[in-house]
Amino acid sequence: MRIRSNSTATRQTRSLYPVAHIIGLFVSALGIVMLAPAAVDLFSQHPDWQVFTISSAVTVFCGIAIVLATAGPFMALSVHQGFLLTTGVWLAAAVAGAVPLMFAELNLDFTDAFFEAMSGLTTTGSTVVSGLDQAPPGILLWRAILQWVGGIGFIVVGLAILPFLQVGGMQLFRLESSDKSEKAVPQAKRFALLLLSIYIGLSAACVVALMAAGMPPLASVIHAMATLSTGGFSTSDSSVGHFGSASIEWIIVVFMVLGSLPFLLYVRFVQGRPDLLFEDQQVRNFIRFLFIVIIALTAWMVLDQRMPPVEALRLVAFNVISVVTTTGFASTDYSRWGDPAIVVFFLLTFVGGCTGSTAGGLKAFRFDILRLALRIHVHRLIYPHGAFVAGYNGRKVTDDVFTGVLLFMGLYVITVAMVALLLGLMNLDLVTAITGAATAVGNVGPGLGPIIGPAGNFASLPGAAKWVLAIAMLLGRLELFTVLALLARGFWKQ
Amino acid sequence: MRIRSNSTATRQTRSLYPVAHIIGLFVSALGIVMLAPAAVDLFSQHPDWQVFTISSAVTVFCGIAIVLATAGPFMALSVHQGFLLTTGVWLAAAVAGAVPLMFAELNLDFTDAFFEAMSGLTTTGSTVVSGLDQAPPGILLWRAILQWVGGIGFIVVGLAILPFLQVGGMQLFRLESSDKSEKAVPQAKRFALLLLSIYIGLSAACVVALMAAGMPPLASVIHAMATLSTGGFSTSDSSVGHFGSASIEWIIVVFMVLGSLPFLLYVRFVQGRPDLLFEDQQVRNFIRFLFIVIIALTAWMVLDQRMPPVEALRLVAFNVISVVTTTGFASTDYSRWGDPAIVVFFLLTFVGGCTGSTAGGLKAFRFDILRLALRIHVHRLIYPHGAFVAGYNGRKVTDDVFTGVLLFMGLYVITVAMVALLLGLMNLDLVTAITGAATAVGNVGPGLGPIIGPAGNFASLPGAAKWVLAIAMLLGRLELFTVLALLARGFWKQ
Repeated sequence: MRIRSNSTATRQTRSLYPVAHIIGLFVSALGIVMLAPAAVDLFSQHPDWQVFTISSAVTVFCGIAIVLATAGPFMALSVHQGFLLTTGVWLAAAVAGAVPLMFAELNLDFTDAFFEAMSGLTTTGSTVVSGLDQAPPGILLWRAILQWVGGIGFIVVGLAILPFLQVGGMQLFRLESSDKSEKAVPQAKRFALLLLSIYIGLSAACVVALMAAGMPPLASVIHAMATLSTGGFSTSDSSVGHFGSASIEWIIVVFMVLGSLPFLLYVRFVQGRPDLLFEDQQVRNFIRFLFIVIIALTAWMVLDQRMPPVEALRLVAFNVISVVTTTGFASTDYSRWGDPAIVVFFLLTFVGGCTGSTAGGLKAFRFDILRLALRIHVHRLIYPHGAFVAGYNGRKVTDDVFTGVLLFMGLYVITVAMVALLLGLMNLDLVTAITGAATAVGNVGPGLGPIIGPAGNFASLPGAAKWVLAIAMLLGRLELFTVLALLARGFWKQ
Repeated sequence: MRIRSNSTATRQTRSLYPVAHIIGLFVSALGIVMLAPAAVDLFSQHPDWQVFTISSAVTVFCGIAIVLATAGPFMALSVHQGFLLTTGVWLAAAVAGAVPLMFAELNLDFTDAFFEAMSGLTTTGSTVVSGLDQAPPGILLWRAILQWVGGIGFIVVGLAILPFLQVGGMQLFRLESSDKSEKAVPQAKRFALLLLSIYIGLSAACVVALMAAGMPPLASVIHAMATLSTGGFSTSDSSVGHFGSASIEWIIVVFMVLGSLPFLLYVRFVQGRPDLLFEDQQVRNFIRFLFIVIIALTAWMVLDQRMPPVEALRLVAFNVISVVTTTGFASTDYSRWGDPAIVVFFLLTFVGGCTGSTAGGLKAFRFDILRLALRIHVHRLIYPHGAFVAGYNGRKVTDDVFTGVLLFMGLYVITVAMVALLLGLMNLDLVTAITGAATAVGNVGPGLGPIIGPAGNFASLPGAAKWVLAIAMLLGRLELFTVLALLARGFWKQ
């Protein structure tokens, strides 16, 4: 087995300075955001406000120190620097995000705090914190903020960085810039502003809807943030099930789906092209898939489990959409629905939302591309001399997209297998090991089985397992190859 | 999503007659082979000899009827007919093979008999028969014969048909015929005869070795047949563990590995090219993989489970090799070794032996190609303008091989998931559903969990689950695409 490369590294574009500079900026911004939970805790007279204020000061100080130490005239980032930046930002943010979790009343050790912060920033939503119902408001808000920031961060990465890095077939989603002139930068700024407004607008709409349905204001903000980001951190150990309100569950269902659709299409929608959203093949296939699974599982619940149809539909829709959109809220312990439901939920852990959204998983478009590739392959078996042209969403699917998607899926399964192996070696049982690996790499949240199931908690896992899962979340969030490229020998060679 | 094809079907090559003709020949041959268990039962004065004799007569009659009804001047088979023939032979042989199982003292119903015959012919080795230790010799021999015939059948398919049909990247193993002249047919005949002699020779060597180690003659023949074919049917409910003999286990270890190496390389070995066997990349990587897993697991058994090193090595080597080569014998209930071992054995269920052998699973060469593809992809991410040439075993790996291998792996995982889903819907628990699906598609034999684990039995599963598993075995054996092509709309279009 051998690989030959005739390319030469572009040495001048490998400096770490611009990468560190941008990471410093992000860390500073995250430090400033810590003032929000500080304010909430101050308002509710909880002493944690001091922890958040001091954490904010320290984080901002560290961030600005990095920014100043690495200042200089920078050109556009190279591919090489793009990889470093993406992984670097998430790692640095997780460390910074862990600080208040360690020193607040919650008193997590560094392992637990890093796990919780990474679970937040990757919008996974697995938690090591129990007693959420009694937790101070600042901590609850901070966890939600980590998810909300991580969500918009991943949308940006999915729109601007992954297609450019050609990770996992994402070149299919490269934005066609209509304008290469000097208007490009202001155009990009307008686009970014519009995207952020949409994200904030949808979150605000979710807050208003939840409050109208009777959820307290702070809980509404927290759940809206955790919903749009498909994160899944809640204010109660029994998650959304705590509120026992059908209208709250249906509202969250709608916004979980909205969070898992391509945000680019919302921008186009606002720009006067709603047709692009409604005619998008990924969106249509994704929604159709949700419908089929929900209707089939509801029918089974009604016929086999004798549950009233309306209740069955609500329970199934909420929990299926929660897992498929990789949010990870639970409105009930679906692992008690029987073996058929358990197998279905296990498989749903792998699916994920649409690309360009806040959702994780394999992503809907990759299943579309896989199906297309299978159809072409079978046709080619039958007609060895046929010629085939494949299109998706009006674009030609090139061979490198097929290879990228297929390799991604292969690597995804292998990553889950390797994480499960590591968890197994730490004496976790087969179901906990496999579903824990799948839920972490897919950024879903809950696993299955008595320990990490929808009614469970990750607190009791050994420390090493928490580290493995946190890294698995990062790998999954950055679509594996982004992190893997850093581990390649060639990456660090001059 | 759309596919356009500009090819036209070659109508004259779609006749079912030549396909049925060859299937008839195979069925007749299988009927004749039934006289062997008849003779054994007659010799040991068991009344089943009549069942086998009548079954033989009926099967030969049916086979010859088909042969005569479809006789005619035939040309070479088309690709289209190749697909039909491959699936058709296995299905017809499973039905014929089930006949004596239904009417013998064992008295299986058709579902159980078909499951057992398919498990034999696909060299899976999952069984619904319990009380093997008291079973009449004819039945035990017949189960072993099904595996042995299925084993050589799959070697032939893997050498002559799959590469020609381009299934799952198998075009990489197309034989380069050095001679296109009229000498080609006698050459192919010589090759086939040599192959068969090697298969018989290795089996005979295994029989002799087992007898020398103290195994009774008939049990030796049966175990040799089930070992070389990597099938795994035994003469005892506690499998090879029943004999409690270290030397028997080590002998079987050696022949299981021999059964899972490419038989083409044995032919070349005999033809004076032993270097091809020892320098083959698939063989080297496969053996290296076995070594690493066995040594790691043995070390864990010694250090963590405090087992004596020699015993640990023997137990680990036997059971790891049994699962990886997809044989499925068990020398002990390894599912009691603890969670780390369970997770390891679950993952090993997917690996499989080398291509061109009797083994199932994903096959060693596909992991090699996947690793190669990943390395190239990561290099391409880092050097977007680099050019890469990939080689394997001295051949250039073309894009269609990469795509074929990756698609195969994707389809394999999806097939396991779909089979697990169906088993889950039949109220099997998650572990039984997933490991049952994996062991059937991989043609391994035992699953995990209390029902179908290494100490368990498939008899208690619902009938529908047995049918699903039997079809899964066939799918796995014929490398998915061979069967899938038959289900494509385009296949039956004129």
